[in-house]
Amino acid sequence: MELKQVILVRADLKMSKGKIAAQSAHASVECVMKAMKSKTKEKLVKEWRSEGMMKIVVKVSSEKELYKYMQEAKDQGMITSIITDAGHTFVAPGTVTCGCIGPVEIEEVDEITGELKIL
Amino acid sequence: MELKQVILVRADLKMSKGKIAAQSAHASVECVMKAMKSKTKEKLVKEWRSEGMMKIVVKVSSEKELYKYMQEAKDQGMITSIITDAGHTFVAPGTVTCGCIGPVEIEEVDEITGELKIL
Repeated sequence: MELKQVILVRADLKMSKGKIAAQSAHASVECVMKAMKSKTKEKLVKEWRSEGMMKIVVKVSSEKELYKYMQEAKDQGMITSIITDAGHTFVAPGTVTCGCIGPVEIEEVDEITGELKIL
Repeated sequence: MELKQVILVRADLKMSKGKIAAQSAHASVECVMKAMKSKTKEKLVKEWRSEGMMKIVVKVSSEKELYKYMQEAKDQGMITSIITDAGHTFVAPGTVTCGCIGPVEIEEVDEITGELKIL
């Protein structure tokens, strides 16, 4: 099985590189923490880690678009996280900045997010 | 206790925003996974998560500089991770791209990385 995490970042927010990195890390860790609560999903995390923790970061153009993909992934039973920023710096408080799907089988998630462009 | 993770990214590599985000997420998750292996450190992770998983992303100017800070953190018994990229895309295989320290008490880690600039 080949697994990956897909991190979806809102490109319309004009966040700095560092901000995007921090928000993406939030989303990725949140998915891992959620997964660790279920024995089946924990196995996925361990396997993904042993494979090198593949991650790809893609862009979405709005909050609405982000939710559309996240909902599809959720409906398929995938691990998901959505990050809302406290908004101390770049964005207004409560702004949804990014989301993460997985670890999940590459083929499965590509059916949902495969069309999105790499950030 | 107020905790944070500090992610140190090599600014000399000219990585794309997406690449930096993926590498930072690697580093952050790796620290979390390492921490989960120790009861004491696991507590730190849980507390940090309940506080909102504060993360800051700072820049270093070379591999040498990155190792200097990581070593100092390690010497203090902090959780650390260093990420080496498989190099399929932007950088040569085996390139060290970034590192992560923590979660750790803000004051403690600021003594080591407080002088570094935000990415």
